[in-house]
Parts: sequence; structure tokens; C-alpha cells
Amino acid sequence: MARVLVTGANGFVGRQVVEQLAAAGHEVHAACGRQTLEGRALAGVHQVDLLEPGTPSALIETVRPTRLLHLAWCAKPGVYWTSPENIAWVRATLELLEVFQRTGGEQAVLVGSCAEYEWSGEGVCREYETPLQPATPYGRCKNATRELVELFGQLHGIPLAWARIFHAYGPYEAPGRLVPAVLAALLKGEPARCSHGEQLRDLLHVADVAAALVQLMHSNADGAFNIGGGQPIRLREVIEYLARQLNAEHLLQFGAIPVAANDPPLLIADNQRLLATGWQPRFDLHSGLDDALAWWRGRI
Amino acid sequence: MARVLVTGANGFVGRQVVEQLAAAGHEVHAACGRQTLEGRALAGVHQVDLLEPGTPSALIETVRPTRLLHLAWCAKPGVYWTSPENIAWVRATLELLEVFQRTGGEQAVLVGSCAEYEWSGEGVCREYETPLQPATPYGRCKNATRELVELFGQLHGIPLAWARIFHAYGPYEAPGRLVPAVLAALLKGEPARCSHGEQLRDLLHVADVAAALVQLMHSNADGAFNIGGGQPIRLREVIEYLARQLNAEHLLQFGAIPVAANDPPLLIADNQRLLATGWQPRFDLHSGLDDALAWWRGRI
Repeated sequence: MARVLVTGANGFVGRQVVEQLAAAGHEVHAACGRQTLEGRALAGVHQVDLLEPGTPSALIETVRPTRLLHLAWCAKPGVYWTSPENIAWVRATLELLEVFQRTGGEQAVLVGSCAEYEWSGEGVCREYETPLQPATPYGRCKNATRELVELFGQLHGIPLAWARIFHAYGPYEAPGRLVPAVLAALLKGEPARCSHGEQLRDLLHVADVAAALVQLMHSNADGAFNIGGGQPIRLREVIEYLARQLNAEHLLQFGAIPVAANDPPLLIADNQRLLATGWQPRFDLHSGLDDALAWWRGRI
Repeated sequence: MARVLVTGANGFVGRQVVEQLAAAGHEVHAACGRQTLEGRALAGVHQVDLLEPGTPSALIETVRPTRLLHLAWCAKPGVYWTSPENIAWVRATLELLEVFQRTGGEQAVLVGSCAEYEWSGEGVCREYETPLQPATPYGRCKNATRELVELFGQLHGIPLAWARIFHAYGPYEAPGRLVPAVLAALLKGEPARCSHGEQLRDLLHVADVAAALVQLMHSNADGAFNIGGGQPIRLREVIEYLARQLNAEHLLQFGAIPVAANDPPLLIADNQRLLATGWQPRFDLHSGLDDALAWWRGRI
């Protein structure tokens, strides 16, 4: 069992990671920002501002983890795509990594994004083939971090997994995003205004995303890994399934919202590298959406 | 007149920058690493380790500069090309820049390198045309910093000049490099073992390199600028000129050292963007080499 530090532990993905690591018997230290984390069997909860220079070092010196799962990053909906805070997260990530390695850290999992890829290509992203051509400040900072993390691993001979998450959904997802937004409308009996819904995306339940990160740790993985189900899912199918479960198909308004110009028709993960680690998703689309629906039903 | 903070102020280029800024009447604060800086009319000399998280912030908070010339980076000959310290300098640079902007900094000049460019191309490097494809950890870290600095400038609306230095020579150059190595041999009356010397390079006297950085500050420049003379100079010509001045042509041994496989035949700067700022070099090749020779003569 390992002493693991998880940053962003109270985030959408982080909560699940912490739970799964604790269930697997690891000594889990959770680093949180503003909010704290309660009710879990954790070795330590650390409420810290990782953007404050010196704080990542102090945290690592205190915890002395042998494994690091670094999930913290700016994720404020509507803001994170273009926030200058993305650049500060590059810096904080480097500080964390440097001290982690210096104090004997053995392997780390860091979180990237499908936004690192060029989106105007064929739409199926392969880790070491698809051009890395991010269009947004968020994607540019994730990609610059990836470049530096890769170099860091090479120069220090330490395995570092770079987990490019595609589209996660499930409990604690940010309210403005697709699944919560549709459910919020339908559960209130209001019209659900959608785009045409023809986009093909790679949706994965957040528990399976978390399980992938944990598996990258358990398998001592190194290099870039797409975190996705590998199947194109039409957004219309997601929306219609949720509506059917609620007998609310009459509330759907496809085409009410325009699609952004840079919104690609197809964006999915080639997940061969992830599958090769032994990871398998627990949820299929319907059971995953059922789980999300059950969680949101009690909260909207 | 501006309150200017110069990092790497006791370095090869930094010394000249500090002197020129002081001569131009600016309030100059010099940040040095291990060694200090003496005998100059400076507003402050700060001996600090910028790689220590929090130190860049504390320095900026103390000095409150309106201009920043950031030259510090790892530069240890034989080590800097592959040192992991390059990654720490990315982090330190970001911390410096963030606090500089937050405390009212108006414009900064940061130092890049010709090592950011792909070296297998035509050999004449143009800032926004030649592919950025660094082959070394040093080049990769400079290029990643450039990417983040560019984004930082865009997001904050602050002009940031990125000065890609090609090949500087002159007083205080590191002993193992071409001009000092040849002079060291010849001044001692020993054989000067050289490669074939057919490489075409962009050599510029370090005082002119420094003047270019100062001009980027005075002209409030933004974006990438090649710092070079723009003329291809055959290394053989440099070596033969130095030998002629010392009547030591019989000591030259061309071909005694092999050329590295990745050593490009031609590597020079297109300096149109730099010339457009009003900068002009003070030295031509011969007067520059005369100056270097005079300086080294008293020291070898």
C-alpha cells in the first residue's frame, strides 16, 4: 500500500479518486482548496492554496507521499477556458513535481485534457499521433505542462502518467454542463433547450474516469493516456435517454441553442493505451446515466 | 527613467545590461545568484536564489520594478543543455512574471535562445516562420516558457519581449566556448585544436546583445525578436583573424576536433524585427574580436 497525495481531492473527479484509493487500502492524503472534505477514511486532509509559491513544497515535505495524483487546476465553468490562472497552475504543478521527486516520490499521475489535441482533424485522438495543437489558453497550458512533465520524467527517470480526460459526467458535475443542465430542466418540468445534438463525444462516468487514474497509479504507468470509453456517443442519444427515463420527451427543444463554430462534429479517445493497463469501465452509457439521474434527482 | 529589475545581473550578458541601463540613467536593481556585483552605480544589489519558491515574489515586492529584464537561467557550460534545472527556471520565470504584472509592472524583456528553432531547416531563422522544434532540454524549456510568456502577455494585455540570443562573444564569456578557448591556447603559445571551422554562425559582441535587450525595453517591444547581426560568419574566419592578430597562425589545427552530428552548417538570425526597433550594432566582427582579444589578453 502506498502513501498517496491527491490534489483537487474535493473536485468532481478527485472525490471519486480519494474514495477508490481509500477503499483499496492506501494511506490517502487529500489536498483541498477552499472547501474541505468530510466523512471519509483519510490519513489527512490538507486545506491549502497550491498557487501560493512555496505551499506545494511545504505540503509535500509534510506528507512525504510516494505517489502523487495531481488533479487540482482551475475548473470554474465559463472561466477556466481563458483564465490567466491556468498559467499559475503550470507553475504550481512544476513546484509540486520537483519537490515530490526530490523527496523520493516514485510515480505520479497528472491530469491533462482532450483540449490539448487539434480538434479540426479526423476526430479520433491518438496519444502519439494526433497533433497537439490546443486552441484555448486552458489547452495551451495543459499542453505546455505535458511537455515539461514529459521532459521532467525523462531527465529524472521517474514514470509520470499524463491522463487526458475527455468528457466525464456523474455526481458533483458542474451545474452548467450538459447532463446536469438537461436534468435540471427536465426534473423541474421546464423546457430543455439543446443544440442539434448531433455531435459525437466520448462520455465516461466520473467513477470510471477516477478508476482509470487509479489504474495508472497501480500499473506504474508512464506517458500520455487518453481517458475515455473509446465509443462515439451522439449527444442526442444521451439527452433522449434521460428524457425517456423521466417521461419528459416533450420538453426537449433540439436546435434551440446554436453550436459554437469550433465545436467539432466528432471528438473521441482512442483508448488502446488505457485498456492495455487493465482498466475496464464499470458503467455502460445507460447504467452510467441512470446513476447520474439518481444522484441529481435528490438534489434538484 | 524607469525602475528596472535585472536578473542574472552578474552573468555574461547581464553585466553589460546593468552597465548600459545605469549609464542611461535608470534606477537599476540587480539580482544576482551566488556572486555579487560590485563597482557600479546601482540602486540595489539583491543576492537571491530565484529557484527557491517564493523568492521571486519577495524580490518583486521589495523592488516594485516597472520594468523587468529577466536574464537568469542555468548557464553552466557543458551542463545547461540537459540539466533538469531548466525546468525549475520555467517555474521561477512564471512566478517572477506573475508578481511583476500583479504589482504594476509595465513591460518585460525575457531571454530565449536560437535553440528553440528547428536546426535542420534552411538555417536562416525567422521569428514567426521557422518551426519551433527544439532538440535539447534547454531549448524545450526555453520554448515552453516562450509559449507561456506569449499567452501571459495576451491574457493580461502587457507587452513582453522574447529575445532569442544567437551567439554572443566578448568579456566574461565562459572559458570553454569558441573565442575564449582559441584565445587561451594562442595566448599561451599552445596549439589551438579546432573543428573544420566551415560552420556559418551569427556572432555578435555581447555589448551589442545587451544593447538589443535594452532597446527592446526602451521601445516597449512585444513578441519574439532574434538577437543577432544577421550576417553569416564562417567560424574559420573568426579563428584565423584572432590568430593573425597574435601572429600565431602556425598554432591553428583545423579538423582536430570532430563536428557534432547535430551541428548545422548554417544557423543565423533574420534580424529585421530587431532592426525595426532602432537597434544598430556598435561593433563589426573585427572591432568586436579586437575588444575581446584585449580583454582576454590581460586575463589569460
